[in-house]
Amino acid sequence: MSPQNTSTLYLGAPEVARIVSRKGLSACLAGIAACIEQDFLRWPDFDKSPRVASHSPHGVIELMPVADDALYAFKYVNGHPRNPRTGLPTVMAFGVLAEVATGAPLLLAELTLATALRTAAMSALAARALARPGSRTMALIGNGAQAEFQALAFRDLLGIDTLRLFDTDARATDKLMRNLRGQGLVLQPCASAAEAVRGADIVTTATADKARATILRADMLAPGMHLNAIGGDCPGKTELDPEVLRRAAVFVEYAPQTRIEGELQQMAADFPVTEFWQVLAGRRPGRVDALQLTVFDSVGFALEDFATLRFLRAAADELGIGQRLQLVPRMADPKDLYGTLVRSADPRQARLAVA
Amino acid sequence: MSPQNTSTLYLGAPEVARIVSRKGLSACLAGIAACIEQDFLRWPDFDKSPRVASHSPHGVIELMPVADDALYAFKYVNGHPRNPRTGLPTVMAFGVLAEVATGAPLLLAELTLATALRTAAMSALAARALARPGSRTMALIGNGAQAEFQALAFRDLLGIDTLRLFDTDARATDKLMRNLRGQGLVLQPCASAAEAVRGADIVTTATADKARATILRADMLAPGMHLNAIGGDCPGKTELDPEVLRRAAVFVEYAPQTRIEGELQQMAADFPVTEFWQVLAGRRPGRVDALQLTVFDSVGFALEDFATLRFLRAAADELGIGQRLQLVPRMADPKDLYGTLVRSADPRQARLAVA
Repeated sequence: MSPQNTSTLYLGAPEVARIVSRKGLSACLAGIAACIEQDFLRWPDFDKSPRVASHSPHGVIELMPVADDALYAFKYVNGHPRNPRTGLPTVMAFGVLAEVATGAPLLLAELTLATALRTAAMSALAARALARPGSRTMALIGNGAQAEFQALAFRDLLGIDTLRLFDTDARATDKLMRNLRGQGLVLQPCASAAEAVRGADIVTTATADKARATILRADMLAPGMHLNAIGGDCPGKTELDPEVLRRAAVFVEYAPQTRIEGELQQMAADFPVTEFWQVLAGRRPGRVDALQLTVFDSVGFALEDFATLRFLRAAADELGIGQRLQLVPRMADPKDLYGTLVRSADPRQARLAVA
Repeated sequence: MSPQNTSTLYLGAPEVARIVSRKGLSACLAGIAACIEQDFLRWPDFDKSPRVASHSPHGVIELMPVADDALYAFKYVNGHPRNPRTGLPTVMAFGVLAEVATGAPLLLAELTLATALRTAAMSALAARALARPGSRTMALIGNGAQAEFQALAFRDLLGIDTLRLFDTDARATDKLMRNLRGQGLVLQPCASAAEAVRGADIVTTATADKARATILRADMLAPGMHLNAIGGDCPGKTELDPEVLRRAAVFVEYAPQTRIEGELQQMAADFPVTEFWQVLAGRRPGRVDALQLTVFDSVGFALEDFATLRFLRAAADELGIGQRLQLVPRMADPKDLYGTLVRSADPRQARLAVA
């Protein structure tokens, strides 16, 4: 960042929607998955920590920082299950990409829309390494805000062609079926989670209640299934019966965080898990045979947002989308903060001082 | 936040400069000090944690969250001592105020300018309780970006009329003297820190080097002085000889953070300190007699930024300053993120879907 250019690129919700519209949703899912894969392969290069959560009776607000030696990123994200009753999304997010060498904020971007894309891209990336080759049918339990993105990412990145759908709210399933009409997917609404799971190669759980729920019991599952558990993602919020985990090979993003937030919170602190980056990097095996039950206990990790912000920045640059914010004062003398401030009080000098 | 209004108030550097210009710097310092005092008096109501720091060889990037049961705030702030060489401020910051009940971001504001104001307001607020009544002379060691704000806050809130100035860089002192001309302060440039301290009632240290420095030694100090140590504010960065702390009554903002970041990092983990809010609230004594040496080991705490964001939001509202950002998508159906996104691809529907 040069002294002449202290402005921050801004991508609000309309701008990110425009990027997705211009590039196409499939290209964005594939592009974000590629960025996540690149960054997960560089896992040891990153300064990682569990996210910082602030819990209230209404929900949770979290900050998720991560950095390598060139870029620092953080995401702000909330989870408020009752928000839709007042017209707000359950999850809202935005993020910042900054320069490690100077601390200057380079990009501020909405991540409400983009988090749905990156969560789906991450899920599909993990399933590509962990599900049985030739998987074609996915059960999708929880047909809310995340569901269409999961469906399309699994179609694009794994070749899923059939979805077995269940939600306790039938309207959610109706909405999903309307949205996915004409997308080359066979859509099979089911009367229960157990029915949806029957015959599936992959089971994705994406329910929103902040509670200990048992969406899947061990007796509902068949050997060789891959479970993509994305809804158990904060303390007190789980979807799987502990017995499912005991019978499975469990893969996670970042173990210290997943033990606090994921399905793992139900298990002992030494319950064996594999960090997924090790599978990608060829350091640890993924699925070992066609009968193994695999679980990706996904909670969402800051590095996925780092990758997403990188993707958005490159896309905005390529397409010429975005505005500039003067979030940092432009200063003639960076040691003269006071002079910068008071000169801007003189309207004739304001443009120069704090343009 | 109503479903019709998901936009975020945005105050960039030009907007915050305009607030300061319209209200006046003294009114802003007094207003921020009043907000800090209000919030410190409610100290037990807040969910507090030490800030989350990411260190690199270049500097540090930090996130500082804090919340009560109605509002959540965080600040992003860096510290990069070499930045001025490339025209950037050493410290750049911005912050967000969000609604705890929904997680919606209400305000995004620059805090580079505002942090200087709040740091000075905090220092003066502490000194008002800890310095000897009748203090008139302040030594100001380190005449960089923070110095004028400290000078004016101590003039306004304590009645300081004389400043004894020292900086290893004489140009910094020249800049400060130019900026403070005609402000009703006697300005006395000094040849050394020791000379500046001589005869002072209050000593403010605000140096920027990220190093273990000894700006003040015990033999430089006289009984009854109040030390306002604001530069020792991250691991590896200190300004006071440990012997100074041993001889003094030491006051801090939030002990768990100051023990990591402040002058206290040089002392044993059980070195006795008083959290300043307890003095404000009348729970613990401040200065006990005219001969006591008092130290405010200030590192900057998230609650001060929370108070500052509250002040800026009220000021923007009062003055009609600020823009609105669509950082969160406006959604006809908050459970239909996918529909929101794809409908915005149709330009005729874009305004409705992701306005």
